[in-house]
Amino acid sequence: MCQGDDPTCSEFERHRLDFRTGMAKERRAFLKSGFAASGGAAALATTGISLVSPALAQVSAARAPGEPRMHVLPANAETVHWGYFSRTLQPRVEVESGDYVTIETLTHHANDDADRMVKGDPGAESVFLWTREKKGVMRRGAGPGDGGGLGVHICTGPVAVRGAEPGDVLEVRILDVMPRPCANPEYKGLAFGSNAAANWGFHYKDLLTGDKPREVVTIYEVDARGDRNWARAVYNFKWVPVTDPTGKVHPTIDYPGLPVDHTKTQRNHGVLKNIRVPIRPHFGTMGLAPKEADFVNSIPPSYTGGNIDNWRIGKGATMYYPVAVPGALLSVGDPHASQGDSELCGTAIECSLTGTFQLILHKRADLGGTPLESLDFPMIETAEDWVMSGFSYPNYLADLGPDAQNEIFAKSSIDLAMRDAFRKMRGFLMHAKGLTEDEAISLMSIAVDFGITQVVDGNWGVHAIIKKNIFAGAAS
Amino acid sequence: MCQGDDPTCSEFERHRLDFRTGMAKERRAFLKSGFAASGGAAALATTGISLVSPALAQVSAARAPGEPRMHVLPANAETVHWGYFSRTLQPRVEVESGDYVTIETLTHHANDDADRMVKGDPGAESVFLWTREKKGVMRRGAGPGDGGGLGVHICTGPVAVRGAEPGDVLEVRILDVMPRPCANPEYKGLAFGSNAAANWGFHYKDLLTGDKPREVVTIYEVDARGDRNWARAVYNFKWVPVTDPTGKVHPTIDYPGLPVDHTKTQRNHGVLKNIRVPIRPHFGTMGLAPKEADFVNSIPPSYTGGNIDNWRIGKGATMYYPVAVPGALLSVGDPHASQGDSELCGTAIECSLTGTFQLILHKRADLGGTPLESLDFPMIETAEDWVMSGFSYPNYLADLGPDAQNEIFAKSSIDLAMRDAFRKMRGFLMHAKGLTEDEAISLMSIAVDFGITQVVDGNWGVHAIIKKNIFAGAAS
Repeated sequence: MCQGDDPTCSEFERHRLDFRTGMAKERRAFLKSGFAASGGAAALATTGISLVSPALAQVSAARAPGEPRMHVLPANAETVHWGYFSRTLQPRVEVESGDYVTIETLTHHANDDADRMVKGDPGAESVFLWTREKKGVMRRGAGPGDGGGLGVHICTGPVAVRGAEPGDVLEVRILDVMPRPCANPEYKGLAFGSNAAANWGFHYKDLLTGDKPREVVTIYEVDARGDRNWARAVYNFKWVPVTDPTGKVHPTIDYPGLPVDHTKTQRNHGVLKNIRVPIRPHFGTMGLAPKEADFVNSIPPSYTGGNIDNWRIGKGATMYYPVAVPGALLSVGDPHASQGDSELCGTAIECSLTGTFQLILHKRADLGGTPLESLDFPMIETAEDWVMSGFSYPNYLADLGPDAQNEIFAKSSIDLAMRDAFRKMRGFLMHAKGLTEDEAISLMSIAVDFGITQVVDGNWGVHAIIKKNIFAGAAS
Repeated sequence: MCQGDDPTCSEFERHRLDFRTGMAKERRAFLKSGFAASGGAAALATTGISLVSPALAQVSAARAPGEPRMHVLPANAETVHWGYFSRTLQPRVEVESGDYVTIETLTHHANDDADRMVKGDPGAESVFLWTREKKGVMRRGAGPGDGGGLGVHICTGPVAVRGAEPGDVLEVRILDVMPRPCANPEYKGLAFGSNAAANWGFHYKDLLTGDKPREVVTIYEVDARGDRNWARAVYNFKWVPVTDPTGKVHPTIDYPGLPVDHTKTQRNHGVLKNIRVPIRPHFGTMGLAPKEADFVNSIPPSYTGGNIDNWRIGKGATMYYPVAVPGALLSVGDPHASQGDSELCGTAIECSLTGTFQLILHKRADLGGTPLESLDFPMIETAEDWVMSGFSYPNYLADLGPDAQNEIFAKSSIDLAMRDAFRKMRGFLMHAKGLTEDEAISLMSIAVDFGITQVVDGNWGVHAIIKKNIFAGAAS
């Protein structure tokens, strides 16, 4: 019988979730069984397997009301907000700490090839619906009126976590990530994504050949069955002006979800021939609502996460976010099949994905003396690493004043983000690992890798990575 | 009998080199045996295993005069130059293309703890010798007189490659890298390194605690027997003014090889307790003599390599350098036991190492149509990746004019280096891999990782990494 391990079983999804829930129950029972009293907690804590010590896990679990529940949040015009985070949004689902939630996400680039990424998919069709008379999602962006395209990501949510308050930390475990299969029977078993070399790309004003400047969209094919761990290009095309249903002409990609008319494009097939792009499915945008403004452009990442665009935020990773508003208000979007560090041309392989998450609330009152005390930025934990997310401006909404949402696009640099990543890693090593400043600085120079997360999201990013096993000797 | 695989054999080193030479002969015979004619060459070329196609390897091998020979270049006051590259230097050894050379290198930080890194080691003692009457190596740096400390790395060499001319490419294969065992019997089986959090570090003016600013040196212990793949800290100390043998006082680390007097320092033991730093032995500085000036400061990396400070330049990696002067003039130094991307505090674990290299000359006339044609920067190949080295100024000596060697220290930024790394990776994908610009830019955004090589060497660095297996599909 399927234990959540047989994908051909008709109830595979349910069985798998049952299995996971059971796992969680067992783990929780284990924690409650006096493990801490036996001295196991102290041993585990010093090995540094997780930022959440068994003691904190136990306290946080004890605050939860009972058995964890499963929730499902599909993506459709009723469950998404487009291009912004907002503390004003009504939650689409409310969960308890410890609950699981499966969240569908849609790429905002699906209309680059609606035939492959929208057609036949009721959720995507409802979101991308745009006729002269009706727009499935009226506001796209944080600007006035129709949002002005000041923000582009389709975000599913928000998910409210009961009891979450400013000062708490929300732990988001990414248990699974799956591509969203193409609903067009012509492409059964496949999924598709779009990579737009766009006007906000690092390359845009620095081209060697052809028309300058130009925007080029490449459509990629991903295996939705899981047999192949790589993507391949299907075709590319140069952006041609798109007339939206209101009659407005868009000579460049300046508004999200523009319906590309492929009778006017020239598709080049056979591009990137025989090249296999390793897939790294992850969520480019995931985070909580900030407290600083009612509508916050989804493009620049900030202290509550958002559009971090780090490909390490995939299956097996755990995020830790500082909660800024009541309920935390988690939203997820901007799904990517793959991205390189820097996201050079402005986008990844933008490809709809579905994730399963477990959300665990850690109350401020329980954080004293733990590595999560006073956390003020989104921290990433993978199976092997801790990753600090540095930005040009750590909280640009507060740092840059009333016009922050415009100014951030002119003021970013990698140099600034490096400075922030350095400071955050130093703080982590001093506070979470108990090192002196001199110890932390030496260790950073010899064992921490600094990489360029993205140079295309307004608030540019640098991440600092340290391997967990560096601290493994502490237990022996 | 030892086949070069028994480290306890008294002739282990010779047997190992015999074994390697035999391997090389077999490989060369294989290439000459009509492999290319059989179609194997074409198949291999398209898989992208190496930048050197079998055809080019065959042509280059055919130019070599005969069986490869072994050379050994020890490190001592007669075989090193300190703090600069120079086209004026007499070669310390001359080799033919295809030859092997074992090169000893010494860290310029050995005098941070002479007891552990100099004492009893005749080579190191000859180099670091500095009394009122005599200095083992008079010039340290590219400046006038005593060199002024304008450049710090002890470089062994140069090695001249017979027949090398400007426009050629020198392939340097790093076959082996071993720590230099401590010669002090008190520390048998160990090697040591120094990490200086120095005045040129990224952190220096941005400290939280204690005396500001301050320089702190941490001494690390490395297993020289090869049983442990990690280093650990032994102690640290705050820099105290050092009086050199001429009577000059150095309140900061402003001249290389200053003899630290540990009767004046306060050593803190027990630092970084239980922390295991993974070792990544590599050469921080390796490269050819530039043509632009007679004496070139060893600190800023440039188009002929030098102080790239990328930890990937270790065992198993291959470097490709553009030859700028007759004989190529390869020098190797700045050995590191480990470094993180950014080399944040100014140094790595600076630890003397010995490397074994094979040097293969590719003549300009043979490069047409190959990926190495017109190579104008140092390219790194590892077992899995191709790595492009971007700098703030790709050839700062030419880019910044007559005062380049001073100006470079004020003009660098990660943003500039990112721009250069982008352009170099684009060029690689277009010229070596035959992609269009649009293909290259899309691939860079979804599959190339940009990292921060170093922010402490004047000419700051960003590297761009692409996995070779992305192109593996081309052969199937």
